[in-house]
Amino acid sequence: MQTVKLAIAGFGTVGTGLARIIEENGDVILARCGKKFQIVSVLVRDIKKRRDYLPGPGVTLTDNIEEFTSCPDVDIVVELMGGTTAAFDIVKKALESGKHVVTANKHLLAERGIELFEIAKENGVGLYYEASVAGGIPIVQAIKESLAANRIKSIVGILNGTANYILSEMSTNGLEFETALSQAKELGYAEADPTFDIEGIDTAHKMVVLIRLAYGKDYPLSKLPVEGISRVEGQDILFARDLGYRIKLIGQVRDVGGKLEAGVFPALVKYTLLLARVGGNYNAVRVEGNAVGPSFFHGQGAGSLPTGSAVMADIMALAGSRTPDNTGFNNTPITKADILDPELATSEYYFRFTVADKAGVMASLSKILAEHNISIAQAVQKGAASETNVPIVFTTHKASTKDVNAALREIDSMSFITRETVSMRIL
Amino acid sequence: MQTVKLAIAGFGTVGTGLARIIEENGDVILARCGKKFQIVSVLVRDIKKRRDYLPGPGVTLTDNIEEFTSCPDVDIVVELMGGTTAAFDIVKKALESGKHVVTANKHLLAERGIELFEIAKENGVGLYYEASVAGGIPIVQAIKESLAANRIKSIVGILNGTANYILSEMSTNGLEFETALSQAKELGYAEADPTFDIEGIDTAHKMVVLIRLAYGKDYPLSKLPVEGISRVEGQDILFARDLGYRIKLIGQVRDVGGKLEAGVFPALVKYTLLLARVGGNYNAVRVEGNAVGPSFFHGQGAGSLPTGSAVMADIMALAGSRTPDNTGFNNTPITKADILDPELATSEYYFRFTVADKAGVMASLSKILAEHNISIAQAVQKGAASETNVPIVFTTHKASTKDVNAALREIDSMSFITRETVSMRIL
Repeated sequence: MQTVKLAIAGFGTVGTGLARIIEENGDVILARCGKKFQIVSVLVRDIKKRRDYLPGPGVTLTDNIEEFTSCPDVDIVVELMGGTTAAFDIVKKALESGKHVVTANKHLLAERGIELFEIAKENGVGLYYEASVAGGIPIVQAIKESLAANRIKSIVGILNGTANYILSEMSTNGLEFETALSQAKELGYAEADPTFDIEGIDTAHKMVVLIRLAYGKDYPLSKLPVEGISRVEGQDILFARDLGYRIKLIGQVRDVGGKLEAGVFPALVKYTLLLARVGGNYNAVRVEGNAVGPSFFHGQGAGSLPTGSAVMADIMALAGSRTPDNTGFNNTPITKADILDPELATSEYYFRFTVADKAGVMASLSKILAEHNISIAQAVQKGAASETNVPIVFTTHKASTKDVNAALREIDSMSFITRETVSMRIL
Repeated sequence: MQTVKLAIAGFGTVGTGLARIIEENGDVILARCGKKFQIVSVLVRDIKKRRDYLPGPGVTLTDNIEEFTSCPDVDIVVELMGGTTAAFDIVKKALESGKHVVTANKHLLAERGIELFEIAKENGVGLYYEASVAGGIPIVQAIKESLAANRIKSIVGILNGTANYILSEMSTNGLEFETALSQAKELGYAEADPTFDIEGIDTAHKMVVLIRLAYGKDYPLSKLPVEGISRVEGQDILFARDLGYRIKLIGQVRDVGGKLEAGVFPALVKYTLLLARVGGNYNAVRVEGNAVGPSFFHGQGAGSLPTGSAVMADIMALAGSRTPDNTGFNNTPITKADILDPELATSEYYFRFTVADKAGVMASLSKILAEHNISIAQAVQKGAASETNVPIVFTTHKASTKDVNAALREIDSMSFITRETVSMRIL
């Protein structure tokens, strides 16, 4: 009975989870794929750091990259260290030396994936990454294999647990963004520097990976419109609730007549949709195929064991005899995406105007919107006309980004506007 | 570039969907797996029947099983005819002649799957069945591969669209069962003989398949407790709503200390759970693994294109170079399941008692339940004390099936009980 030897770069939350799964579920894993898995080498940043969980005896624990990459008879290298420099070198070296690689590093795949997939192909080895998107949710395999006979019409995802936790707390407990963020930090749901999570960058990395899987196209990170949640206010959450919506940080891609419309942004999601029901630090992905219709996947998007479960599934697949399928497009090179001009994208919108005095303001707002082909679906006013900084909320029917930007430029230049207008899409 | 030749047994809804997918998505399919797929032979029940969609020219259309099975150079046989006799012979013959088989036939797999998997193993060919459970939802591959590193703690599924449609209509539009059923028939959601769907038999077939995948165990259909929805009344739906639940036809399996507790039954599902939000003819499956945690899958559980999409995914997988993995347990034979004594299963319960007169009745009911270790969570009375056939609804804390059966036997023997008590589990 064969033993598969693993070298793990990075032994934090996910690495520990992986080691525990191999230890605690070894019998199930053996029953399923007929193989044993052994961790032979572990690369850590600080070898002196005290750890609750240590890899078993006979494991080379090192903080020396040279020593790690030169470790003999390793079958599969698992990259769980994050970042795009040392991680890139380790993955590249492993692939070039004919070793399969499993990674959870969406940042690396988004920025340098094309290059790495090329190297993997040249060397006929696998580069698998189920854990890089939505943790324990098997969305990579679903798109790569289960839905492989479909034209993907759209993907909409809640792909960052930290952002979703913050928005859920703001919605459920009426917190403001800063309060919810510090709470997330205290609970360990947010890192010391939460920029990637709250500014949508982590979600953007994941969208680049999903777009490549769904369309076989390279959508450059630099071209992806990305907006985070740091500007979402408690009052927007409340207005959204009143109107029957939840605000979620959304990653989206749509096939619009052969061109891809993609982006990351906070959006109002109708309460009746499953996506609106994704709470706390969970993730969810909705994929619509032209044959399968809408498919919805929900689960733990992060965490030691859920992410470890996804990493182990890749390891088991690569340990099997199948020829690796890395991109899901074995017969076609990944080419540049044909990107829809963002100005031409259309959506329904939520606007929150802040005005000094409401006398006549409604009329002016409606007039300007109408002049830019934007028709109003609902209007909500709160507070007395005498107040300053009175919020006025409109929801609209479908309008183009171009028209919306022009209309808001004009509106925000009006004298009665006391704060920049808040604008969000409605899914 | 290789062309994979397909022989299709049964050209109804799913067969037509498959043919359309091959025709309309052929370019995507080629880009993904580098192969073309060609239908060379189709077996139909009635060759004279007029069809909206005909397989292309060069396809042998026959109603003769001999002619179909003897068709030369076929790579993969697709069984979409249903039933367990002719379908069994065709699948068996195909496997024995070294051909891969893809089937959507849960009935066949539940009753004679073990036998067929043996034959497939002996001949080193694939017997794939993604489409047999939950149509377009990739639950088979998820359990077989994506969650392969997990001990499966439980599976809870809404696996029959017809039953779910009927219950949804009863709940949303206040229909009684019979009315909702005839409506489902008119809309083509229910067959002329809906017994398998509404009595839970179809769900039971699917549970046997899922249990085999999740545990590598054979749970005989004959041993699975199965209860349908034909006895669910409008008033139970309404009481459930008042208490914050939806009634769903559930297929469930749980690992209780190494023994399997499984069954098919209508149950009250808390409104806040995603499972309670599965509407109309959709399907959903919740799988809980010891590493991945709860994973939820939702999508089209039936229909021409969604089911065709699942069939095509299997065809593409088998056309690839991987060694087939049929049961998900390559290293262990499927053995008999260790089944938990149903009497020992525990659950929270919903009871609807029908009494002639409520004076003193509450006390007697509570007393009998208490004597059988059943504690009451909520009690709801409606109607005046003078009425006859007054419904009294209790929900309980966890109780064993044994205690519940004994208590209800005693209660239903009381003089004040005018109709058999309705009892349902609460998830």
